Amino acid sequence: MSSLTILGATGSVGRSTLKLVRETPGRFRIAALAGGRDADALAALARELKPGFVAIADPASGARLADLLDGSGIANGAGPSAVIAAAQWPADMVVAAISGIAGLVPTVAAFGAGRRVAVANKECLVAAGAFFMAEAKRTGTELLPMDSEHNAIFQALSAAPAAHVEKVTLTASGGPFRTATLDEISRAGPQDALRHPNWSMGAKITIDSATLMNKGLELIEAHHLFSLPPERLEAVIHPESVIHGLVAFRDGSVVAGLAVPDMCVPIAHCLAYPERMETTCRRLDLARVGRLTFEAPDLERFPALRLAISAMEAGGSAPTVLNGANEVAVAAFLAGRIGLLGIAAIVEETLAQTATGDAPASVEAAMACDSDARAIAHSLLPKFAAKAS
Amino acid sequence: MSSLTILGATGSVGRSTLKLVRETPGRFRIAALAGGRDADALAALARELKPGFVAIADPASGARLADLLDGSGIANGAGPSAVIAAAQWPADMVVAAISGIAGLVPTVAAFGAGRRVAVANKECLVAAGAFFMAEAKRTGTELLPMDSEHNAIFQALSAAPAAHVEKVTLTASGGPFRTATLDEISRAGPQDALRHPNWSMGAKITIDSATLMNKGLELIEAHHLFSLPPERLEAVIHPESVIHGLVAFRDGSVVAGLAVPDMCVPIAHCLAYPERMETTCRRLDLARVGRLTFEAPDLERFPALRLAISAMEAGGSAPTVLNGANEVAVAAFLAGRIGLLGIAAIVEETLAQTATGDAPASVEAAMACDSDARAIAHSLLPKFAAKAS
Repeated sequence: MSSLTILGATGSVGRSTLKLVRETPGRFRIAALAGGRDADALAALARELKPGFVAIADPASGARLADLLDGSGIANGAGPSAVIAAAQWPADMVVAAISGIAGLVPTVAAFGAGRRVAVANKECLVAAGAFFMAEAKRTGTELLPMDSEHNAIFQALSAAPAAHVEKVTLTASGGPFRTATLDEISRAGPQDALRHPNWSMGAKITIDSATLMNKGLELIEAHHLFSLPPERLEAVIHPESVIHGLVAFRDGSVVAGLAVPDMCVPIAHCLAYPERMETTCRRLDLARVGRLTFEAPDLERFPALRLAISAMEAGGSAPTVLNGANEVAVAAFLAGRIGLLGIAAIVEETLAQTATGDAPASVEAAMACDSDARAIAHSLLPKFAAKAS
Repeated sequence: MSSLTILGATGSVGRSTLKLVRETPGRFRIAALAGGRDADALAALARELKPGFVAIADPASGARLADLLDGSGIANGAGPSAVIAAAQWPADMVVAAISGIAGLVPTVAAFGAGRRVAVANKECLVAAGAFFMAEAKRTGTELLPMDSEHNAIFQALSAAPAAHVEKVTLTASGGPFRTATLDEISRAGPQDALRHPNWSMGAKITIDSATLMNKGLELIEAHHLFSLPPERLEAVIHPESVIHGLVAFRDGSVVAGLAVPDMCVPIAHCLAYPERMETTCRRLDLARVGRLTFEAPDLERFPALRLAISAMEAGGSAPTVLNGANEVAVAAFLAGRIGLLGIAAIVEETLAQTATGDAPASVEAAMACDSDARAIAHSLLPKFAAKAS
């Protein structure tokens, strides 16, 4: 029986992880759980799974969580320090599935010798990739990529050492605006952008998928996770989301990771690694799928991807700035304050207004750089405000 | 510098292997070469590559080979024993690329402790699979699959131990008659059947691809090579021949091997294994390929595949009989003596007329069983003779 902590337990990845845990009784014991602000959902999970500790990130929800767990004997706390305590709770494996830059501090806090940390939060690697990887190495932490694309690539990389890799390709569904004109994209509202064709995910990542910023962030994530230079990384549009990632070796062989578009598969892969667990995840049936299509991404209609690739190439603090500005802009878009193309515009102008510094060498440096970028992005919101329709 | 022997040096796989050898000067030294009956081509290769020994299988071509090599100082011989001598010549690696059952004796003769044998001949594994695998194990020979499908699966299997495999899928192009009606197939002549859409190969395997017998033989080959029960193996039609094989693991993950349809890639993989060599093989560009399609095979129009699957399930001597009868029938089809559907009909009737025995436990037993099957198939040729058109 292996012990498992889930950071982001009430989110999309957290819930999918717990579904697998329930399907394999006797395989995992839940060590600790952390959630954002849904005290009711978190308390229900805690009463069911009986972890040693439960944390809620939102300090204002702490009293409600404590009330709901009263008499259960389950230790609990609220606020950032409680989430860190959950991350550091004794466990064999930690699933790091807190969305956004908020996941950085708890994920790094989860590092420890002999521990496996399954990383579902890409912002850690985008905003503080070099530091994050160095810290994992220093602490003897084994990182497992839980994002479907990176998980596919991780599996494909088994076929040969990284030294023999010629190119790594991440696929992108293209999102709901794959075939839309630039004009249609400019008029898209949150409801349009949240209608993802293949994946059921949280709001932030769904918007990032609509702008293709998500694929840009994933390229940066892959750059760090797999120690690959930017020129060995590329994205290809693949609307069916069946092939998630491909590794081309220097002999011309290509090894790819495939699965139905469902987080069930990469989560199961990480949970059982290096073994494989039997799952009820939906199976891929290529004859039924019938066809898979591919096209080069259009950087004109999807400027966010172009910006992310440039930030990866520039290195230093550029990806941190890109990520921070993007989070502010996505939130503004979801709140109806800016249009979809305003996201890339704000990110671009934030990058232009920021002197490129060194890559953040600590969590504090990353958070400071992120915070500066957010301030600039916020200040730009009025300039890109959506016209009332 | 590693030493390499090529059995079937003047054939399609042999020539592609030598092309890679020439492209990587200093990497390989040619230990020995064996060819079928083209003394001129074999002598030219020998003068260029200066092997220690050259063998020609056809005894009648021995004098010509000796003449052509006169004064070169290169030892040479003719007939089956010379081919065996070439197979046993000191070498780090042997490429076993003699087509048909004729490859069995020399390939097994090439086995030896610490040797790598790259197997491009599928009939060895079909006609004597259990014995072949046991013999490789007993002699400490490492087998590398050079067939594109098995090579793809071999690479994909790096992602987890075989115990976690749920299903292995081999793709088939569907050949030139994929969309043909049964009536059209029944009227196809050798020139139609030799027009393979994707691969440039020898005549025997091209006809096998047109009937889908090739995929059936490959399923049997995979059954032995990867120690997988028949129910874990399947074929899917994939006209673009880009994905060559897929391994589905029990967690729902699928890892696949892809490449342009060119033997350059699997040959290069085997030659450098476990390293990877830089090659000039054409590279896969999915955005340019655009789309990949898949469909279930139609066992009505392609009865040869149905027969091969049944033979794999029946086990024992059935695959040996299937293979022997198929070789006779394909030769008769190429000679214009029977129609394309006559191939499966002869194989089916040969199987029906043969009592299923144990799997051949020696090369001699396999050759005897093969020979009996051939005699029966030959005797059936008049019954299925093509009507003069």
